[in-house]
This record gives sequence, structure tokens and C-alpha cells, in this order.
Amino acid sequence: MIGPDVFTVEPWSVTERELHLELLAQTESIFALSNGHIGLRANLDEGEPAGSPGTFLNSFYEKHPLPYAESAYGNPEAGQTMINVTNGKVFRVLVDDEPFDVRYGKLVRHERTLDLREGVLRRECEWISPAGLAVHIRSTRLVSFAQRSIAAILFEVEPVGDAARIGVQSELVANEPVAGSDNSVDPRAAAALEAPLISEEHYVHEMRVTLVHRTRASGLRVAAAIDHVIDGPEGTVTAAESGHDLGRLTVSTELQPGEKLRIVKFLGYGWSSQRSLPSLRDQVHLALAAARRTGWEGLVKAQREYLADVWERADIQLDGDAALQQAVRFALFHVIQAAARAELRAIPAKGLTGSGYDGHTFWDMDAYTLPVLTYSSPLAARDALLWRHSTLSLAKARAEELGLEGATFPWRTIRGQECSAYWPAGTAAFHINGDVADAVRRYLFATEDHEFETGPALELLVHTARLWRSLGHHDAQGGFRIERVTGPDEYSALVDNNVFTNLMAARNMEVAADLAVRHMRHAATLGVTEEEVASWRDAAAAIVVPFDRHARITQQCNGFTRLRPWDFDATPPDDYPLLLHHHNYILYSSRVVKQADLVFAIYLFGNRWEEDQKARDFAFYESVTVRDSSLSASIQGVVAAEVGHLDLALDYLTESAFIDLRDLAFNTRDGVHLAALSGVWHTVVAGFGGMRDHSDALIFAPRLPSRLTRLGFGMLFRGRRLRVEVTPDQATYELLDGEPLELLHHGERMTVTSEEPLRCSVPPAPPRPVPHSPAGREPGLRPD
Amino acid sequence: MIGPDVFTVEPWSVTERELHLELLAQTESIFALSNGHIGLRANLDEGEPAGSPGTFLNSFYEKHPLPYAESAYGNPEAGQTMINVTNGKVFRVLVDDEPFDVRYGKLVRHERTLDLREGVLRRECEWISPAGLAVHIRSTRLVSFAQRSIAAILFEVEPVGDAARIGVQSELVANEPVAGSDNSVDPRAAAALEAPLISEEHYVHEMRVTLVHRTRASGLRVAAAIDHVIDGPEGTVTAAESGHDLGRLTVSTELQPGEKLRIVKFLGYGWSSQRSLPSLRDQVHLALAAARRTGWEGLVKAQREYLADVWERADIQLDGDAALQQAVRFALFHVIQAAARAELRAIPAKGLTGSGYDGHTFWDMDAYTLPVLTYSSPLAARDALLWRHSTLSLAKARAEELGLEGATFPWRTIRGQECSAYWPAGTAAFHINGDVADAVRRYLFATEDHEFETGPALELLVHTARLWRSLGHHDAQGGFRIERVTGPDEYSALVDNNVFTNLMAARNMEVAADLAVRHMRHAATLGVTEEEVASWRDAAAAIVVPFDRHARITQQCNGFTRLRPWDFDATPPDDYPLLLHHHNYILYSSRVVKQADLVFAIYLFGNRWEEDQKARDFAFYESVTVRDSSLSASIQGVVAAEVGHLDLALDYLTESAFIDLRDLAFNTRDGVHLAALSGVWHTVVAGFGGMRDHSDALIFAPRLPSRLTRLGFGMLFRGRRLRVEVTPDQATYELLDGEPLELLHHGERMTVTSEEPLRCSVPPAPPRPVPHSPAGREPGLRPD
Repeated sequence: MIGPDVFTVEPWSVTERELHLELLAQTESIFALSNGHIGLRANLDEGEPAGSPGTFLNSFYEKHPLPYAESAYGNPEAGQTMINVTNGKVFRVLVDDEPFDVRYGKLVRHERTLDLREGVLRRECEWISPAGLAVHIRSTRLVSFAQRSIAAILFEVEPVGDAARIGVQSELVANEPVAGSDNSVDPRAAAALEAPLISEEHYVHEMRVTLVHRTRASGLRVAAAIDHVIDGPEGTVTAAESGHDLGRLTVSTELQPGEKLRIVKFLGYGWSSQRSLPSLRDQVHLALAAARRTGWEGLVKAQREYLADVWERADIQLDGDAALQQAVRFALFHVIQAAARAELRAIPAKGLTGSGYDGHTFWDMDAYTLPVLTYSSPLAARDALLWRHSTLSLAKARAEELGLEGATFPWRTIRGQECSAYWPAGTAAFHINGDVADAVRRYLFATEDHEFETGPALELLVHTARLWRSLGHHDAQGGFRIERVTGPDEYSALVDNNVFTNLMAARNMEVAADLAVRHMRHAATLGVTEEEVASWRDAAAAIVVPFDRHARITQQCNGFTRLRPWDFDATPPDDYPLLLHHHNYILYSSRVVKQADLVFAIYLFGNRWEEDQKARDFAFYESVTVRDSSLSASIQGVVAAEVGHLDLALDYLTESAFIDLRDLAFNTRDGVHLAALSGVWHTVVAGFGGMRDHSDALIFAPRLPSRLTRLGFGMLFRGRRLRVEVTPDQATYELLDGEPLELLHHGERMTVTSEEPLRCSVPPAPPRPVPHSPAGREPGLRPD
Repeated sequence: MIGPDVFTVEPWSVTERELHLELLAQTESIFALSNGHIGLRANLDEGEPAGSPGTFLNSFYEKHPLPYAESAYGNPEAGQTMINVTNGKVFRVLVDDEPFDVRYGKLVRHERTLDLREGVLRRECEWISPAGLAVHIRSTRLVSFAQRSIAAILFEVEPVGDAARIGVQSELVANEPVAGSDNSVDPRAAAALEAPLISEEHYVHEMRVTLVHRTRASGLRVAAAIDHVIDGPEGTVTAAESGHDLGRLTVSTELQPGEKLRIVKFLGYGWSSQRSLPSLRDQVHLALAAARRTGWEGLVKAQREYLADVWERADIQLDGDAALQQAVRFALFHVIQAAARAELRAIPAKGLTGSGYDGHTFWDMDAYTLPVLTYSSPLAARDALLWRHSTLSLAKARAEELGLEGATFPWRTIRGQECSAYWPAGTAAFHINGDVADAVRRYLFATEDHEFETGPALELLVHTARLWRSLGHHDAQGGFRIERVTGPDEYSALVDNNVFTNLMAARNMEVAADLAVRHMRHAATLGVTEEEVASWRDAAAAIVVPFDRHARITQQCNGFTRLRPWDFDATPPDDYPLLLHHHNYILYSSRVVKQADLVFAIYLFGNRWEEDQKARDFAFYESVTVRDSSLSASIQGVVAAEVGHLDLALDYLTESAFIDLRDLAFNTRDGVHLAALSGVWHTVVAGFGGMRDHSDALIFAPRLPSRLTRLGFGMLFRGRRLRVEVTPDQATYELLDGEPLELLHHGERMTVTSEEPLRCSVPPAPPRPVPHSPAGREPGLRPD
């Protein structure tokens, strides 16, 4: 956990006022910078101390064998692990004879600020060396949104009081030792791979240093280069050198009080599985040349402009809780960072902020992050879906290996191959395919992107529909059943007719059918026939949704409500997360839920529920959900708000928004929780805004919790910009541009035009008793 | 496969008339000798060529880490693998200048005979060296039933025609290279461990050579020694030597035609996890001294007498199929070998005939082998149950680790620790506990062993009953449910209310309750109260047995009859066994059965079924059972016979009996299939004899298939010897000694006395259409 006083409450930044060495690994993740292409953990400039050094490039990974004590057909043989690549962040400093190291001497002041509007990380510190020399050291870092392959650092050293001899080594380091995450203790940490890079070339030109490496097994090559602009007093000398795993520029000078040494360092990265060494190297040098031409100020300005544009579309304003406002913006900022320039690559569960989960991408991307992007940065959503599409041939091969039709996407992957070694919670979690398909449906609904619709969308939907059709089958009573699969709740596995999965499958087949009929000529090229379309519609219409008639509860899966009850009262607090203290058998056979599953289905398929049934189901699943997954709170928040428990929803929003700023899952060290941070948008927009997108028009049903006095958010929708503002009594829909738009407000169909805002009153929530979480598992982080 | 002409049909032996080098690995298993304590694969005396060298000591294993790509709470960390220990079987021979090797020169004659009454393996061969010298080489091997730690070999060399210089090295070799079983291709093969033994001591005394080794990780020590009696012409000289991993006696002589060199070699083994080097070594030397004193002839005589006694109790006679008669005796012989002197150690799935399944013991022992022993060698059954009892504290610790009450026995183990790395088909197969408990119940039923009943039996039953009580729970309708477990059928996993498991659990709790009440004072020392007993009875009475009312079929587990049907017609023959060509997801989610599961429940709990329901269930499960497990045929045979399909039952008996003689599972190289060989007894005694033991008296309902004209078998029961003989029309029960015995014949209660045999007529089987197996999966090996 991180205490509430570590970061100051500010609307547009996150500041750590003093250095918390014990939280270094966590703040490295929290302050990490990324553009979705390159990610830099917020390691201290001087390299040490470090929680875990991290420079990550999207989809740059090493392959390793996956071991099985008992092998079986169809187990993935190779794993993929994102690796820490050539680190260009390092500035070693010598003050007279002593290395700058915050663990020695005296740290008079140390402040780091992540500026959410500028997109930079600033650090300022005043340090007195053991010998008594005082210096100011300042750095400002950015990973450029405008120039995808570039990061840059402004580094300044200035003596205070006395003159000092100052030496700075600006480094580029490969194969840094990585502190071993102990994978055998906590399966969530990444497998550490030692010295994964093999030097191919290194050389120096003036103040530019270049290192080219390749990986041993995955066959990837990376070129990294740094270049510099030095500004120091007369007598400042520089020298550059390079070796296999180290390149550096050494700057030596003597500074009088009032003088300073200013170094601008540009970092350029290029990587590929196919391109030659010279072409990669040249690409990096060109990128560096462009960055030098733009210059530090130019990069900073472009960063600010890029973000101004994003915030205009994506910002969420909350009145009534300044700390929550900050946390919400922090969450959105990390979503932006993870997705901005990911382009045709994956968006990992930790973004590029840490090596947790081996840098893999899960359903989080499709089900949590893509909805945010769809309504704020639709091109980024499109790119992510194009990445899924680019792996379609692998997904088809995997389906064939499993003896299934169509395509099945990997549960966890970097490059597209299934990397899950525990199939009951991997391969069996077929809902990933529905999650991808639903993200496609949503993107089409929100953008009407015709070119995408007849191309990648149709292919993705047809192949996933085929998967479902072959995965399920009709029973003698005509029901379409999908058996022995694993839904979102990871405390269940290999269950029959998981409602979330079944409804995803049904919608996937329905949407594929609609699209195929609409574009029959395109569909025919995929071999789709009218008979096949009919078989999808038929299966979708007959999908089985198990219901417990005695308890009047929708079952998460067949038999769920009859499982052995979990004795929550006898479960001590430190038994959570349960997976670290209980065998999967016990979890699977008990009525205990790790994370929103049936409740997620209520969110996405709410039109299939009666209102009272929704409330009853929500209350039941609240009572058995322990929220051992960071993916849960936000979705529970959405449905809590829908059924009228608005203050509970706010608690869930708070938990989700502070997941990393307070290290609530105790593993922010491994990277931020992108699904939870994306979930913040869901709880705000779909929870308090009541936004649903499963009808022909956007649906809203806004309502505020007692603590909030105002909520504002924007949506991009079919080429228009819509602004929604909610107060306790009134909702205002403002169309900033474009043709008039139909929408539903609390069930009533309305039209909003760009001429004038539409104001509607907010009806009170239906009074219902607030349901209970399992003892001790209430959302704990309450605003105070 | 092994062709039908490889072994000649004889009543009491198995002879290979010529050497089939391509079947060497298989015949090493088939001709393996063992007393349950020591096992020697039938490697050629000269060491090479070899399929896979094997000298095994019961419970002598090495420990190795079990790897997991994704770790989880409660996964066993360490595996156990039976290792090939110091090999004392080797005789290297030099004929003039050329080594005797069947691959060179000319093999004029080569014959090996496994003598089932003598308990020896004889080999006779005539070989002409590449230089043209002809020799007779004969060996006879035994692993002594009478002297547990001793094996012995009589080895003879005799020139034919010309005189020859003969050199023989009688060896003792440690850390032989083992041909790598490729575990990654076929999970059923053992993990090969290279050079597992570390030399501790080696030395020579006269013609005795001793090697002492220990294992690296498991902390076991083994002392192996050989001693010799040499009989050769004058001028025969001997020399003994030893090194770390090799001891040998070299014998040099020159033989004239008519002269021979005769070597008797005694092998002694001792091993322990606790005893010191000197004490182990001395124990082996004492055993060797005793064996020398007994002498070769004495050992052979004792062997014959031991087996005569066993065969008198255990033999099964079949008239009408001589090849099947031979195969049945071969099967019984291997069961005897595996169990005879296992004493307080486990009986592995392959006996001590090969390293398959890592030398692990599964439920096969309790459910397949112990019933045979209970009615023919009850003391061996008792010993095996005492081994289970000796591991009770480990089973209790495992239950505690899982958060369960009582004890849960390991799915696979050598020493008692769970060694299954794939928990859905390991830890979740809780029926192992019912299998152990039912073996205890049967032993008590058959022996009335009071001392065992109040001691180990009570403890085993109470702790397993407690396990079931905590594993299951009552639902709102009062049913007692056991969820997410794996039954015998390994093409299903993590299912709800597997009938086999549920009925095992119910009986386990009932029997524990009865025993606890009968011995309340003993039970109280285990903490058993009247309330606890009542809770067992209550749960047992309320056990859930899922039934499909539409199809009128008992479900193997909840929802089984509704799973996706398997398309057998589209499954090519070489897709079997399915597990090697299909992902577990597909198998688990399909209506396909690997092995008798519900059908096994019909056998064991037949009194819970209506006769017609039995036939209907049998027919349904026949239609979906592919018999990819060697454990299936015998049990299908039992129930086939019961519902009247006697010729089908004979087909199943044939398949089970020939599993190794014909290498029907294509892996006899890894050792014989002890469960299938034990199953032969089940199909004969419980199938054609209709024997059941779940009532107060023995039940018989004998009926012969059309091919057999007579069937005879014996049973030991409560201190009496009973002989049953069946002809097509009549059954004869002959009590050889003891008090009169009540039994049921085709539902009629009768009494047999030792005065005169009881003769009863055999009613015809009810006419029913013969059910169908999946296409191509009919029991293929028909008698012809």
C-alpha cells in the first residue's frame, strides 16, 4: 500500500514531495512514461537505486520454452516475455570525487511530478555530497507522442554555494541485471530472463552512440541510439565511446555557483523481426536527426499540443472529490499513454510500465481499454483491432489445432501465439473471442467506419462466429449449449453455459450474421453461405442462460448457485487474495467469485434482464464476490449504479481509480493496472452516466452519488462530439458539432442538435437495500 | 503390436521360439521377473542389445522438481521417479576373441521361456561366432519368492564341435545409460533421470563384489552385491575387481566339446532411507550367505513350492480357448509377481517390470489388484493396505493443505506424497480415497480380520469419510453434492456429482459409520462422535445421483448426456488414443468416455440399479466409450456379462488378457499393465462368475459365453477355501474346508457345506440386443 499522503492532491499532476525509497518500485510504475510504442519506467536518472530497471518496446520479447511436468496435446510449447531493452535513461554524475547517489550524502529536497497535461516527468533535487558539496539536479523526461520512436531528457546540474568539478556519463546500457521477480511465489510476476540481448554492432559518431542487439530465440533486432546537445561553461569537454553492451558520452566540466551544465539527450529506438541491421540503424539515426531538428522545446510543445487535443475529447470532470478527480485523470493518462501510438501492436495489461504478466495482452484490452478508446480516440481502437486482425491466421491455426472451426484468439500473448501454460484458465477462456468481437461491434456502432466494416471487421466477426458455432451445440430440447469453458471469473473453470460467455457468443453470432447479410458479397469471399448465417442466428436465438428457479437467481454457469458455500466469516483477512492461499480445487468447487462475471454480463447485456432480476442478481453476486482481481471493482461499480446503489458505485470507482496511486493490489511495482484504470471510465460513463451501446442509439441514464455535485465527460460518436454534464437533478447533452443525434435518456428517446444543449431531469434511483460484500471485502478505500 | 505367432500356446508357460529383436523392449517387460520387492527386466544376459535396462527395487526412487510455467497454490513441488539401480544380471562372454552378441555371427537357435509354475525365465541359445565357433549358452533366472532380497542366475556356456577359449565377466553395473523415453511426445512414459546414483563404497571379497550407492536428492541408499559358485574344468581361473560404478568377476577357461562352464550367481539387494551404510551392507551379505547356503537347487525348489501354493488358491481354468487360458495365467502370474513380497510397500501400475508412469502407484492397486489379492492372497492385500495406512499422515497433511478434513491420498506416488503435476486429473480425482476405503471394506468382508478392523481399517475409513464430508455439502433440496471432481474417466475432469465418486463416497461414509459404531471406543480415540457418525450417514443417504429423465440414462456426472456428441464416424483409426491427437478441452466437453466410469459404478454398486436400467445405461455408455485406457475392457466385460452380453464379455476378457502378450496398448515396452492383468480376474470371477461382495454374503450369478465349456476358479473367504466351477448349464460350489457358507446363486440364498458340493442350474441370460461400441473401437482381438 501507498499512504494517502505520498502524493499531493492536484487537478492535473501527481507529485511526490519527497523521495520514498521504500516505494521506488511502485513509483517507477506510477511515473512511467510511454507512448504505447516505447515505455520508460521512472527509474532514477542515475540508475541506482532501482526497484526494477525498465525500458520496454511494444512487442519486443524473448521466447522461452514452457515447461510441463505432464505434457498433453495442444499445450503451447513456447512462452513470450517482454524484456528490458537497451536503457538510454541513465546519467551517472560525479560531484568532485563522489558519485551522486541518493542513499549517501544528504538529500535536502527531492520532488517528482508527473504532469498530465504536459506529458513529462519532472524531477528536482538538491543533494549535498558526503564531502559537503551541494548541487541542484533537475531532469525532465518525455516519451514523445508526436515522434513515435523518440524519447528525450533534459538533464541539468548546478552547484549551490561552492564551485564543483562535475562529470556526467550519459549512458546507453544493454543487459542490465534485473532484480529477480520470484515467479514461484507469485504467479503474477514476470519470468525474469537474464542477459537476453546479443550485441551485433556498436559505434560512436560525434556525440551519438549506437548499439544494435538481437535476441537469442525470438529473432528480434533492436537498434538504440542516443544523441546529445550539451550546454556548459567554457572548458566543458566531451568524449564518446562504445562497447558491446555499453555506450556512453562523458561530459566533464567545472561549474561555478550560478553556472550550470545542461544536457539534452535524445533517445531513438527501432526494432523489427525482419528488417536488416543497416536499415534499422539508419531508421533510428533518421529519427534522431528529426528529433534534434525539432529540439527539446519543440518536442515539449508538440507533447503539450497532443495531450491538449486528447484531453479535450477524453477528460472527465468530477466536482466534489478533488483526490478522486486527480486519480481519474491519472487513470485516463495511463490509458492514453498505453494506447496512443501502439498502432498495429498490442496493448499489454500493464501497458509498457512494467514487466508484470510477462508483458502479455489479455482480454483486458478488448473488454476494458477499447471501449474507452472507441469513444475518445477511435483511431487507436481501430489500430488495436487491426492488431488482433493481423494475428487472425495464428488464431485460425490455433482453432484448427484444437479441432474447432473459425479462429480462437490467445488468452495471453505478445505476438499472437497462445502463451498460457495452464489451459483451464487460458485456452478454455474462449470468451476472449467474444470480447474481441464485441469490441469490433462497438467500434462499428460508434464510428460507422465502412472500410473497416467490410474488411477486418467482417473477417474477425465471421471467424469468431464460426468458432462459437463449433464450440457449442444444440441439446435435445433445442437449447444451444457451450460447455466446459471458463468465464471471466477465475475462481471457476471448465463450467457449463457460463452466462457471460454464452451471451457474448450469441451476440457475436448475431452481429456476424447481420454484417454478413449486409455485405453478402464480401462474406461470400470468406465462404459464408445463407445456410451458415441461418445456423448462427439459430444458435444465438437458442442460447442457454441457466437460471435457478428456487433461488430466483441467474446462474453464473450451470449449477453455480448449488456449489459449496464459502465460509467468509471464517476467512481471515490475510487469506486474500484467495488464490495464494487456497487450491484451485477449493476455489472452483465453492460459491466464491473472484471478479465480476455474471455482473459483467448484466452490464453488457442488460436488455436481457428484468430490472428487479438485475437487482436481485447483483445483490447475490455482491455477496460472494471477493474482488481478488483488479478487473472487478469498476464493473461492479457500473451495475451498482444501474440498480441504484450510487454510493457503493462511488466506492468501487474510488477503488479502481486508486489501484496504483495507493498500490491497492500490492503489485504496482510490476506495472500499472491498465484494466482497472480503464475501468474508471466505465464506472463513470456507463455507471454514473448510464451509457449503454447495445441498442440502435446511445443510451444514457445518468445519476450521481451523493458526494458528487457535478460530472462531465465527452464522447466521440459517429463523427460528432457530444458532451454530457450531470448534476444531481439534471443532465445536459451538448452536441458540439455534426448532425442531430438521437439518444435515450432514462428510457426516453430524445434528439440533441448542435443548436442548443438538451436538458433533462434526473429521476431518483429506485430505493433498494444496499447489498453486502463478503465480510471484510467491502470496497475499503472510501473518500474521506 | 506383437503378432499371434510370437509366443507358442502352452498351458503353463510362455515361450518365444526365436529371438525377435524388434520386440526386445516388449519381451523385456513380458518376461520380467519380480517378487514385488525386486524386479528384473528380461534384459539379455550379455547386456546388449537392450530395449531398456531395468533393475528395480520397490520404492527406490529419485526426487526431482516438477516444473510449472504458471505456479499455483498447492501444486506438488517434487516428483518421484523409480530408477534403474545397480544391475547384477550381466554376463559378458568372450568366445575365443569375439564377444557374444546376437547381432553378430549366427544365431542358430534362441528360445526364452517364462515358466509360470517354476517362476523362472529360461533362455537357451546356440550361437556361431563370426569366426565360426559354435557355443551353447543357457541361463535360468529367478527372483526369489522365498528369500525376498535375493535373485539368482544359473549361467552355462558350452562349446559345440570345437574347443574354445571362454571368458565370462559376471558384472554389477551402476548408472547404466537408459534410452531416453521421450516424455514430451507420450506423457505416459517415464521421465528419464541420468546417472542418479552416487558411489559410496565398492569392494571385493573372494568372488563377492559389493557396490553401495546413494541417490542425490531422495536420500536413499542401496547396497547391491553378487556372489558366485563356479564350476568349470581344471584351469578355470577367476578374478574379482570393483570400481565406483562397476564390480565384476572375470572367469577364464578353455572348454573342450562336452565340457561346460557353469556359473551360479546370487544377487542381493538392500535399501533404506534411514539405515547406515554398514548395516545395509551387512544385511545384503547375510542375505547372500543364506542364499549360498540354500544353493541354486534349493532356491529353485522353494520357488516352485511357493508358486504351487499360490496357484492352488489363485488359478483360473478355462476350457474352450487354450490361448486365452495361457493369457489368463500369464496375467495372474504378473499380479502374483507384483504383489507377493511387496509387503509394506506400494504395488506400482507396472509392477516392477518397467519404468512406465515413473514407477508410480495409482488407484489401480486398490480398485483392480487388491480385489484379486483379497480373495487369493489376503495377506498381500493386507500388506498393501498397511502401506496405504503408513502414508496416512501424508494424506492428512495433503487434506489440510487443501483446506479439507480427514485425509486425501495421492493420485500418483511412490512414497506417499502427491506427485501429480496436472491437478484436474490428479488431485481432483478424489475417488482414489473411495477406492482405498472400498479395498479396506472388501478385505474386512472377506477376512473378518478383527485386529486390522479396529486398527488401520478404522483409521483409514474414518479419515476418508471425513474427507468426503468436507468435500461435499447439502444443497437446498437436501441432496449431498460433490462438485468439480474428476472420476475414473479421464476424458472428463472437474465435473459435478460423478456417480462413481458419489457412490464411493456414500459407501465410504456408511462403512465408516458402521465400523465406528461397532468400535465406538476405538473410534472415540480418533475424535469420532455420535454426531459425526450421524452426519456421515445423513450425507451418504442423501447422495446425489444425476439422472437424465428425457433419455432415461444415469448420467456419469451432471450434464454428461447433454455434452456435445463425438463424431465417431469422422474419427480416423489413427486418431486413437484420442488424448494424443485432441486437446483436453475437446475431450472434456464431448460425450466421449475414455474408460469405464458409470459402468464401473454399475459393477460396484449394482444393487442401486434396476436390471433394465443397468442394461440401458450399459448400452448407452458402450456407444461412447473408446477404451483408450487399458483399465476399461475388464470392467466393461464384467457388466457386459451381467446384463447378458456374454460373448461381448469374452471379447473384453480377451483384450484385457492379451494387453501385453500382444502389446495392444503399444507401450508394453514401459512395463506390463497390471490393472488390465488384474482386470482379467474381474471379468472371469465377477463377470462370468457374477461374483459380487456388496451384500452380507457372497453373491454369484455365473454364466458362460458360448465359446467356453468350463470355467473354474477358487476363492479364499473367511478362512475357507471355496471352488467354483461353471459349465454352460450348471454351477458347482465346493467348500474345501471350514464351516458351512451362505451364498447367493442367481438371487437365491443357498448354503454350501464342506460335506458335499452344491450344484445349481444356470438360467439363460435375458435376451437383449448387443450394444455397439463406437465405430472401429469394438474389442478387436477376437479368439479365432
